[in-house]
Amino acid sequence: MSDQMVFERMALVGIGNLGSSIARAVRERGLVRTLAVADQSDEARRRAAELGLADAFFENPADAVKDADVVVICTPIGTYGTIAKVIAPHLKPGAVLTDIGSVKQAVVAAVQPHLPAGVHFIPGHPIAGTEKSGPDAGSGALFEGRFWILTPPEGADPAAVAKLGTLWTRCGAIVEELPADYHDKVLAVTSHLPHLIAYTIVGTAFDLEGQEQRDVIRFSAGGFRDFTRIAGSNPIMWRDIFLNNREAVLEMLQRFSEDLSYLQRAIRWGEGDKLEELFTKTREIRQGVVEANQARPFPYGNAGNGNGK
Amino acid sequence: MSDQMVFERMALVGIGNLGSSIARAVRERGLVRTLAVADQSDEARRRAAELGLADAFFENPADAVKDADVVVICTPIGTYGTIAKVIAPHLKPGAVLTDIGSVKQAVVAAVQPHLPAGVHFIPGHPIAGTEKSGPDAGSGALFEGRFWILTPPEGADPAAVAKLGTLWTRCGAIVEELPADYHDKVLAVTSHLPHLIAYTIVGTAFDLEGQEQRDVIRFSAGGFRDFTRIAGSNPIMWRDIFLNNREAVLEMLQRFSEDLSYLQRAIRWGEGDKLEELFTKTREIRQGVVEANQARPFPYGNAGNGNGK
Repeated sequence: MSDQMVFERMALVGIGNLGSSIARAVRERGLVRTLAVADQSDEARRRAAELGLADAFFENPADAVKDADVVVICTPIGTYGTIAKVIAPHLKPGAVLTDIGSVKQAVVAAVQPHLPAGVHFIPGHPIAGTEKSGPDAGSGALFEGRFWILTPPEGADPAAVAKLGTLWTRCGAIVEELPADYHDKVLAVTSHLPHLIAYTIVGTAFDLEGQEQRDVIRFSAGGFRDFTRIAGSNPIMWRDIFLNNREAVLEMLQRFSEDLSYLQRAIRWGEGDKLEELFTKTREIRQGVVEANQARPFPYGNAGNGNGK
Repeated sequence: MSDQMVFERMALVGIGNLGSSIARAVRERGLVRTLAVADQSDEARRRAAELGLADAFFENPADAVKDADVVVICTPIGTYGTIAKVIAPHLKPGAVLTDIGSVKQAVVAAVQPHLPAGVHFIPGHPIAGTEKSGPDAGSGALFEGRFWILTPPEGADPAAVAKLGTLWTRCGAIVEELPADYHDKVLAVTSHLPHLIAYTIVGTAFDLEGQEQRDVIRFSAGGFRDFTRIAGSNPIMWRDIFLNNREAVLEMLQRFSEDLSYLQRAIRWGEGDKLEELFTKTREIRQGVVEANQARPFPYGNAGNGNGK
């Protein structure tokens, strides 16, 4: 038995990029004794089995979570309500239930009502990931030096929160606790709005015709390339994020649109001083990101830059 | 004498990130016999001399371009008119004059009227760079595998165009010829609009208060980080780009704003199918970028991702 072990039995629901990264991270470090995985995709289960990512594989999450001491939901947010309903009767009393979703208030609303007393639901969100999908995309090093936010609800068991925190800390993450609504507001700025904008601009380019579209792709190294990477992220996952963090995203989008109109007007009227002023102050934010050591790209294949899921 | 030599004497006006990258690239490969550099900044000249980037340094570009066979303007676009006026009387008949500016039509309008007959003005634009500034930021490998666009005006001397193309090809670049107006239109999409949007969103975040701004920086790995890198680019250079490619940028910005409003409305009304449809089609563009081998980040320090200057 490893000295590092935190939970005896873990179950993962969903073995995509994030699920498989968790599987690798906890097994490489001996943080759990056994790992059961549920995924509705035959192909994902087959591939995860080939990669040796878990001890047992199930189609039905109810079968995977039986006897588990910790259960991690790693599927798009839109599936959480159904999954919670299916697994609730099979969760062991005292088990810790968590997730990796990019929105937290909606997750609590979707999951909590189904849960029996005695199950500790502690929502979570690792600020890590890549734009790639599927079990092959995972890496056991994905969480090293990255933040992993927990949003324990009021009255959560401190021991359960601490134990879950230990699990992710031993995966290399920096664990932080935040209120769910504050998390959703901050992530609307740091992740959801950037993704929405990246999807938009890549979509705008998509509508260009023939040769022009081809040249946009060829000459993408001038900035556009970074947007295409973000806009290559999982469509279902992102659809669900926007639908489930609507208020915060729309509020930040409104601010962004006002700011963009200001710059548009400055360009139209040739007001170089306004442009220069903004472009100078944004450098300060960049410097903050570099100093916070969050500028480090994830060394992960060709395009892997650890951009948010 | 190197077999690789293309020009006897080169002069660079401006020894920032791009200028110093060209200096390193041509000297490491023996593509010129002598290199003279002009920069109005004492500090930049001092540092470039310490780095051994050239044979001679001058404050006045007129002194640097005397006897040069090829002159490369590597300063923000807003300075081109003044520089052209200053250097024009000192350019050698038959010399090739080029630049690295991200806008091409405005460059021709600013420079061409000052030039004497017999000087070959062939505007250029390497699709490479990083967000860093100054002579230390350069790299002789910056252009390897990157496109370098030339926009020779009608009636340009084919021999001069070919010789300049050979110079940049030997620096590792893939040289392409495009009409100046088409270049400006494509770059408005691939580079100028992405930079404008990145500046805007980072500015929007800058206006958040205290703890929230600090948390946006801490949790930037979810997508925002990539925008801060782009928005850390040289403010003067980018001010000049927007002022000098106004029509094309405003047109693309208009399209982008319409597309963003469409998504905004879909989020407000919970139209998940519209979101999913767009997010799926943008993946095709990403695939195109990967297949065009333009997804490779530039291996350049911590944050170096070869994003457009």
